[in-house]
Amino acid sequence: MMNWDTVFAERTSEMKRSSVREILKLTAKPEVISFAGGLPAPELFPVERIKQATDTVLSERGREVLQYSTSEGMPELRQFIAKRLSKGKMKISADNILITSGSQQGIDMIARVLLNERDRVIVENPTYVGMLTSWKPYHLHFLPVPTDNDGMQVDGIQPILKDQPKLIYSIPTFQNPQGTSLTLERRKQLAKTLVDHNLLFVEDDPYGELRYSGETLPTVLQTEAEYRGATDVDGNVIYCGTFSKVLTPGLRIAWVAAAFPVIDKLVQAKQATDLHTSTLNQFISYEVARDEAFLNNHIEALRDLYRERRDLMLATMDEHFPDEVSWTRPEGGLFLMVTMPQHLDASDILVKALEQNVAFVPCGEFFIGSMGHNTFRLNFSNARPERIVEGIKRLGAVLKAAI
Amino acid sequence: MMNWDTVFAERTSEMKRSSVREILKLTAKPEVISFAGGLPAPELFPVERIKQATDTVLSERGREVLQYSTSEGMPELRQFIAKRLSKGKMKISADNILITSGSQQGIDMIARVLLNERDRVIVENPTYVGMLTSWKPYHLHFLPVPTDNDGMQVDGIQPILKDQPKLIYSIPTFQNPQGTSLTLERRKQLAKTLVDHNLLFVEDDPYGELRYSGETLPTVLQTEAEYRGATDVDGNVIYCGTFSKVLTPGLRIAWVAAAFPVIDKLVQAKQATDLHTSTLNQFISYEVARDEAFLNNHIEALRDLYRERRDLMLATMDEHFPDEVSWTRPEGGLFLMVTMPQHLDASDILVKALEQNVAFVPCGEFFIGSMGHNTFRLNFSNARPERIVEGIKRLGAVLKAAI
Repeated sequence: MMNWDTVFAERTSEMKRSSVREILKLTAKPEVISFAGGLPAPELFPVERIKQATDTVLSERGREVLQYSTSEGMPELRQFIAKRLSKGKMKISADNILITSGSQQGIDMIARVLLNERDRVIVENPTYVGMLTSWKPYHLHFLPVPTDNDGMQVDGIQPILKDQPKLIYSIPTFQNPQGTSLTLERRKQLAKTLVDHNLLFVEDDPYGELRYSGETLPTVLQTEAEYRGATDVDGNVIYCGTFSKVLTPGLRIAWVAAAFPVIDKLVQAKQATDLHTSTLNQFISYEVARDEAFLNNHIEALRDLYRERRDLMLATMDEHFPDEVSWTRPEGGLFLMVTMPQHLDASDILVKALEQNVAFVPCGEFFIGSMGHNTFRLNFSNARPERIVEGIKRLGAVLKAAI
Repeated sequence: MMNWDTVFAERTSEMKRSSVREILKLTAKPEVISFAGGLPAPELFPVERIKQATDTVLSERGREVLQYSTSEGMPELRQFIAKRLSKGKMKISADNILITSGSQQGIDMIARVLLNERDRVIVENPTYVGMLTSWKPYHLHFLPVPTDNDGMQVDGIQPILKDQPKLIYSIPTFQNPQGTSLTLERRKQLAKTLVDHNLLFVEDDPYGELRYSGETLPTVLQTEAEYRGATDVDGNVIYCGTFSKVLTPGLRIAWVAAAFPVIDKLVQAKQATDLHTSTLNQFISYEVARDEAFLNNHIEALRDLYRERRDLMLATMDEHFPDEVSWTRPEGGLFLMVTMPQHLDASDILVKALEQNVAFVPCGEFFIGSMGHNTFRLNFSNARPERIVEGIKRLGAVLKAAI
């Protein structure tokens, strides 16, 4: 018999099942009030519109829609995304767009084409755990930059440049897990740093369109182009966007926008990884999204619903959480992060919360270094209002008992 | 400005755009008669059935169908595939099945969890170029085993075991590019070799259900279990199957069947790679396939059509190809392979063929070592009969002129 313990590749020592996804399984029971996942509100999925779109594309171009297609992605969809990303003065070409099966795939392939074993990578701290799951098997040295309510402390980049980092990864807007955003001032400072030091920056932007208050901010992609005095994406930013949060995640349609040499290499990785993204799902997504009035109205409806839920969660926390606990107050996205006193461990609190049928995600694994054990992430987009109130009340009671 | 030549990871030196997929782009013009791709016949896609199924799953379970889902795959679909694979005495559990986004992804992730840099891997020669595209960046040593009309020469495995190969990769049934199959006798001999020497075997089986003549053969998965006196998949075979060739490739639904420790590791890789396979496409595929009477009839219709096209291509080749050229005569699958005299180069012939608006895939890149420059692959499933006759006639004329 095969001794499986000795068979797997060395890199698998850095692989494990994502604890977030394992917690999500525990929350499948209907009685559990889950603030754990990053799930959009299913009651707003445009099911009818997607049904119509599917019917249209299958009726009109069925044979093409069900056949193999190019690794780069459906030309019309690439064109659409290039145009939609061309905000302000930006002029992005379809050649600078690769369609991926969800943003996770874009992030995974970026590592594949850019990172050597033991490379040094700058991340904001805490950072997105799904990136860590994908990138850790390369045995990287993560160089953490602290964050505050204004996002990554960009001043912290310069001192670690002596370590010759390969790139910076960040979610500048409504970050996961904190929900906080990099301010405009820091975006400009970051753009200058990227250009002056010729640094690569991976901008992961799944939540950018989900703003509920405050001023809209330009992407780092835009800010960097502006600093270069350019309107193209031929600079140092590799941008990842997705339909998962503004349409539906179940179709797995996302994209990378970057300089052509990067897209060209990513296409090669895409061919090796899964040949191409589902033809049907690209056609459906394009058919739904190209009606931009519909898309923009739909996003507006999402914003209204999520704003309400965010406000309700924050108000209920203000009322029921103990004074010893603090949390972020995001202007958008899906998450906020709670910080408990140092002596509390979020995993212990999760056990107690699950006894009360409430779930969340402890943030320890989002941090580089041994910190964050006392923090956890709450999602406010998925649960209905009465369950938000009830869940937060129960969680408040659990916290008060623990402190 | 970024000097992109110096930026990419070292492993990308082994990446390039797949020449097969690049040739496919040339064949997009309607006047080109293409025998290049591995494309199923689109006129047999069950478009209406897929439209109905989509309507059903979106109407009945729309919110679930468009939401994030588990990395392992839809439980009902895993159960269905486990049952369908439980041929003869086999009893396969849903826990032994992982749903992937196409078989290419299964193959790619198998390398990710099993292969260290510079591992030795046994392959039949020629072998599937899509596997090479994915696996070459690990800088592997491929140990080629010659093939003949009875498939891989299994006798050739024993002598190279001293090189401590990590695993064997093969398409035992209707191989790509040759269309040939491993005989029953050799399957039994292979099973014995795998068990006696505790060797891992990756059985890539996209074409197994597409048999047009001859006796049905058991999979190596079955044969190895039988040799072990077992009915499970807890042995040394990792099996990759897909709906791409029997339903449609555009949905990208495939699976890996293997011992649980392998599936468990692959699930971790799947989480890192793209979180999960499209929920919608899994629901559609299950909804269509669970009507097994429909599925089996559909496969029967595919067999009838492809048998006709294979026979027509072979008959036209017999009539119009020069005597100096030989080719395989497959009992199933999508491809046959042509061998020209040594002094001819398939890439040169392709240029001349494209001048006549006929396309095929030169097989040089399917071979390990500097051989195969005089071979090319013909697909017989995709082109309509009149175009098969016309294309083969033109190709015959090109070959006669070149010899």
